[in-house]
Amino acid sequence: MKLCIFDDDRIGVALGQDVVDITDVFASSFRPTWPYPKYDWIINNFESVRPHIDEAIESGRRVPLASVRLRAPVANPGKIIAAPINYKDHIAEANNDPQINHGKTFTDLSTLGVFLKANSSVIGCHEDIRIPFPDRRTDHEVELAVVIGREAKKVSRENALAFVFGYCIGLDMTVRGPELPDFRKSADTFSVLGPWIVTADEIPEPNSLDLSIHVNGELRQQSNTKYLIYDVQRLIEYASAMYTLYPGDVIMTGTPAGVSPVTYGDILEASVSGIGTMTARVAAN
Amino acid sequence: MKLCIFDDDRIGVALGQDVVDITDVFASSFRPTWPYPKYDWIINNFESVRPHIDEAIESGRRVPLASVRLRAPVANPGKIIAAPINYKDHIAEANNDPQINHGKTFTDLSTLGVFLKANSSVIGCHEDIRIPFPDRRTDHEVELAVVIGREAKKVSRENALAFVFGYCIGLDMTVRGPELPDFRKSADTFSVLGPWIVTADEIPEPNSLDLSIHVNGELRQQSNTKYLIYDVQRLIEYASAMYTLYPGDVIMTGTPAGVSPVTYGDILEASVSGIGTMTARVAAN
Repeated sequence: MKLCIFDDDRIGVALGQDVVDITDVFASSFRPTWPYPKYDWIINNFESVRPHIDEAIESGRRVPLASVRLRAPVANPGKIIAAPINYKDHIAEANNDPQINHGKTFTDLSTLGVFLKANSSVIGCHEDIRIPFPDRRTDHEVELAVVIGREAKKVSRENALAFVFGYCIGLDMTVRGPELPDFRKSADTFSVLGPWIVTADEIPEPNSLDLSIHVNGELRQQSNTKYLIYDVQRLIEYASAMYTLYPGDVIMTGTPAGVSPVTYGDILEASVSGIGTMTARVAAN
Repeated sequence: MKLCIFDDDRIGVALGQDVVDITDVFASSFRPTWPYPKYDWIINNFESVRPHIDEAIESGRRVPLASVRLRAPVANPGKIIAAPINYKDHIAEANNDPQINHGKTFTDLSTLGVFLKANSSVIGCHEDIRIPFPDRRTDHEVELAVVIGREAKKVSRENALAFVFGYCIGLDMTVRGPELPDFRKSADTFSVLGPWIVTADEIPEPNSLDLSIHVNGELRQQSNTKYLIYDVQRLIEYASAMYTLYPGDVIMTGTPAGVSPVTYGDILEASVSGIGTMTARVAAN
């Protein structure tokens, strides 16, 4: 199932060329209020309403996918976790490019761990990416993003996939420079999630997915998640050893070689097999 | 005014030896539900209800401060921002101690920027700090924490204090190791905020506050915020140049020299002049 959020925070299921509005299915779920929980409300309640989704798909309002504005498919991620150097070819290009490494030498992920991206940086693919510092290099990084479905603490890699709600495409936008990655990658609009979450039952093997990004029609990054150094299970094991993962937390798994600068008006078309394609845009100046 | 949250998410004002329950003052404020806003509900609504707080203080239920369980005074911070090397004496001790620097040399904050702490790491001073990896060194770091009161983007240092809601004490608990600070400092319970927020009108000059921490009665850190390299205004200017700050976002301003390991059962007594003292505890094994 392709779960999305669209327009004025409607909850939908993408079906072929349409989106079916299933917002009413969640009407019976208690909407928590202040203080807000650590989990995302939709993701946390999905299993309990799932039996009613099939009938909602039959009877729900259906609108053309092309007519809706897709929001980030996780409305309230508790935290956005990201892997900094998780493909060997990206480590090599980073070590070869002083504009990327800024005097550092990258070896392996255990020397950096994973980092955080600000929740306030999240947008959907139909909102514009904005460049914060025009005088600095800003890059695209296409990634497989894992959405956590169950509270997870000290999870073993053998059990890790049971804690996954689903997968989406992530763009980890990045200002190059000497600062820590969580600062340079947390500007407003710098975490593009979309176009929807494909639930985990449809992607039994997340470590064999093609991913790519075209910028203005030109192929820039193309790889497969089989080249992940820490695969999806290991990332969940590793992150959940440090902190609790909550439903709606997102793990961006890292980017392969081919990162390159973007500029005003660029069109970014990102694809992950099994999920689909999303088209994002860098805002005009 | 000393604004706190206590017991079962009651909102209070600390007055001498008592806490006055002012929860009902916020009853008329619309409580947003899914999707949750980027701001903290209490902080965002405080100005609009403030005229009613004085009468609530007269008529509200009053309980002894010693009898309540203090929660983090910001229930839902959008992001916790922290400065990694913002006192010269801490930079010196970090560069002299391989257990802190792990082979890195620290120069100035502009080479690191500020980092993020996971929202899921926040606790109040009456919840126990837990050590995630007993075989690794875990340190206390006492800090002045700034709570943002108004949405702030690209704020100048001249206007920066107008965006401050108030101040509290922060403990930035830290696992030492080679990983990025946002990973090592985001374990569950690693951001202790408390005991309350002193509103900004009571602290017109945040850059001249004594701060200290005693561990089991022994003084470990003692300094003054006049030694901040990036002062409060500069941190707001610097952070808001990268991303929008929202009401309830917290900036932990950095720690002076004297960081040292904690172990099971340690009692941490942290003080900042103008705010008060909070006593936190490391959980027993």
